[in-house]
Amino acid sequence: MADRRSTPRGERTGRRPGPSTTRTEILAAARASFAELGYDRTSVRGIAARAGVDPALVHRFFGSKDDLLVAALTVAMNPDERIPEVMEGEPAELGERVVRYFLSVWEDSPVRDVLIGMLRSAAANERAARLLRDYFGGQVLARMAAPLEGADASLRATLVSSQLLGIAMVRYIIGIEPLASAPPETIVAAYAPTVQRYLTGDLGLPSA
Amino acid sequence: MADRRSTPRGERTGRRPGPSTTRTEILAAARASFAELGYDRTSVRGIAARAGVDPALVHRFFGSKDDLLVAALTVAMNPDERIPEVMEGEPAELGERVVRYFLSVWEDSPVRDVLIGMLRSAAANERAARLLRDYFGGQVLARMAAPLEGADASLRATLVSSQLLGIAMVRYIIGIEPLASAPPETIVAAYAPTVQRYLTGDLGLPSA
Repeated sequence: MADRRSTPRGERTGRRPGPSTTRTEILAAARASFAELGYDRTSVRGIAARAGVDPALVHRFFGSKDDLLVAALTVAMNPDERIPEVMEGEPAELGERVVRYFLSVWEDSPVRDVLIGMLRSAAANERAARLLRDYFGGQVLARMAAPLEGADASLRATLVSSQLLGIAMVRYIIGIEPLASAPPETIVAAYAPTVQRYLTGDLGLPSA
Repeated sequence: MADRRSTPRGERTGRRPGPSTTRTEILAAARASFAELGYDRTSVRGIAARAGVDPALVHRFFGSKDDLLVAALTVAMNPDERIPEVMEGEPAELGERVVRYFLSVWEDSPVRDVLIGMLRSAAANERAARLLRDYFGGQVLARMAAPLEGADASLRATLVSSQLLGIAMVRYIIGIEPLASAPPETIVAAYAPTVQRYLTGDLGLPSA
């Protein structure tokens, strides 16, 4: 899941970099900063220094720190393309596709570090929690709920998010064994039926 | 889940409080401090000040800050009594009993605040994460795995923890709707079958 547009740092030619290279470098600097420092300690000024550009340029290209985080998360998760792909296809394997998408994002370590930084901040900081809530609600969960039928579509997407966030906490953040070191195929086998039921099964809800 | 031994603050008689009252007051002060300030910003000195005792007394009764957190978590969750209760009884309703135990702890707000403080710290701080890992591993997951048969008992307990921690993140910490406001019976209906399968069902694991 490497950003295909990124240029390795230090590999400079004599040409002055164009705007798209600069954008990519700012975004790479933002991702590195959110991953290393988390949301709270990341600043537009620090990102600009890392990318070797003026802070005003960062503001002009991306807006605020929050906008940069959203851009970094979007590159990491690519939800606008990948979630519709996941939701289409053989309905009986929907749960498995969701879990494999989740693993494809989290097992990739640079992306994982951005997400860990984000989740750590969201656990500690109400502003970061709101950003994550809005981002997941609007970009991830809404796309997951869209193709589902019924009044409980949003609830179903949220149930899925509760299982996936829990895997993230236990496997990647707190590190509880044996789940932390289990092979990816164990994760798929254990969780795909759960996600499948949350998305398409009988939830047995009390009649509301 | 109120601590049955605790005395409301300010309700003092003329008698000098005995050691058990002092212990209880120190523990109440520790719980309030972990809940308000989280693990990082809580200190034995601050807990002593809150309880109106000398820090040396806190050390003598409880040991370190980490020991105090373990004591506070144990009062909150009472795992040595409650988990064996949950694991016994009708096997077909095991998942439901686990979810109801989880809700009984988390829906009670003073206890929830301690747990939120703990999870926030564990997400941010490796020392707090290790403490939570050791506590959950030794006090909660081991008791959940003990009555299960088979080589995958620990994995099964960890799968359960991944779902319950995920509910905690989505419902109580990040607050993603509609799950954050769903009635407890919806939580039970949605999650009991998941927990039941993790503890007793076919996990479909790749042959190892």
